[in-house]
Amino acid sequence: MKKGLFITFEGGDGAGKTTQVNLLSDYIVNKGIDAVTVREPGGVPVSEKIREIILDNVNTDMHNITEMLLYAASRAQLVSQIIIPALNEGKCVICDRFVDSSYVYQGLARGLGIDVVKTVNDIATQRLIPDITFFIDLDPETALKRRLALTKPDRLEMEDISFHRMVYQGFATIANMYPDRIKRINASGKAEETFSQVKEYIDPLICRYTD
Amino acid sequence: MKKGLFITFEGGDGAGKTTQVNLLSDYIVNKGIDAVTVREPGGVPVSEKIREIILDNVNTDMHNITEMLLYAASRAQLVSQIIIPALNEGKCVICDRFVDSSYVYQGLARGLGIDVVKTVNDIATQRLIPDITFFIDLDPETALKRRLALTKPDRLEMEDISFHRMVYQGFATIANMYPDRIKRINASGKAEETFSQVKEYIDPLICRYTD
Repeated sequence: MKKGLFITFEGGDGAGKTTQVNLLSDYIVNKGIDAVTVREPGGVPVSEKIREIILDNVNTDMHNITEMLLYAASRAQLVSQIIIPALNEGKCVICDRFVDSSYVYQGLARGLGIDVVKTVNDIATQRLIPDITFFIDLDPETALKRRLALTKPDRLEMEDISFHRMVYQGFATIANMYPDRIKRINASGKAEETFSQVKEYIDPLICRYTD
Repeated sequence: MKKGLFITFEGGDGAGKTTQVNLLSDYIVNKGIDAVTVREPGGVPVSEKIREIILDNVNTDMHNITEMLLYAASRAQLVSQIIIPALNEGKCVICDRFVDSSYVYQGLARGLGIDVVKTVNDIATQRLIPDITFFIDLDPETALKRRLALTKPDRLEMEDISFHRMVYQGFATIANMYPDRIKRINASGKAEETFSQVKEYIDPLICRYTD
């Protein structure tokens, strides 16, 4: 049975992850490859409901451990319902944020520790690990400006700039922990310039579909 | 700092747990002891919302791992917001179901394994362990009859009798695993007869409050 290719994108809000996800999705589909693009909670009804609780501005008394477990629950459903079936069918799955975001936001920035978050997420994901992960690397001040110009901030987005700096450092730490899997992509230029770096890593991986 | 006393009640639906919880709560309060009685999700708004998702009859495609993580998230909030603060104030906390229910329902009956459920719940509860746990022991057929006469069944309650037998065996297994903590209470008689067995274990434990 041919196994699919699992690609994830990570980084702080406003770094341009979603743009890169869309560019890669178009690029892959245009090559005739069967691809599934998901962004947690991924349109999965159970996960959507869980995400509503996490992002609800009213729930300001939510404990860090509760938040971490809710993210893991939402991910468990997405993995079991969408990602694993697609990979088992040999499809290419592109995911906008995955476990590394939990390592950074809940493990490092909120202080739960990576070990605790990894223990729970290994169970949530059934130990599914991306084949390749892109850390879309943009300094947090520039990212914040891009972001606030776009949308009304939700509870997580209202955290101040020091939090975003901590998140940025967190992704840098995780990227150093998993250098074989996580590729650091300079996102300070135009979207197409960023994407050309992504393509360099992706082209050798997708030849299995096109050869 | 005087630490409180943490008491939990476990067993299948319809065994009479809630009746015993209420009898014990009255008994303790009548002795002038400061007691908090909770039933998951415990009136904690975040946990109530999580429980709505779990019990929603529409969510029939919920994965076992998702369900287990949602129970753990709900419990994490109840523990951090209500139970630990009360115990730190020296209060007596009585809880209708706790981690043993997850070991049985998600670990054994749903087949995730006790180790996985324990790993997640150790994190959710911050390793809080009850001082004493009562397994309210009633055969599942009698329990089912009591139960169906009372309320409209929800998603979990609609499972068939073979599931309830598995749950019963599960509680018996867990009781054997933790014989020092879990006390097996014969619930085949009247509620007062059941409660007299509970009192025998409780009286030596609450003398610290009344002496």
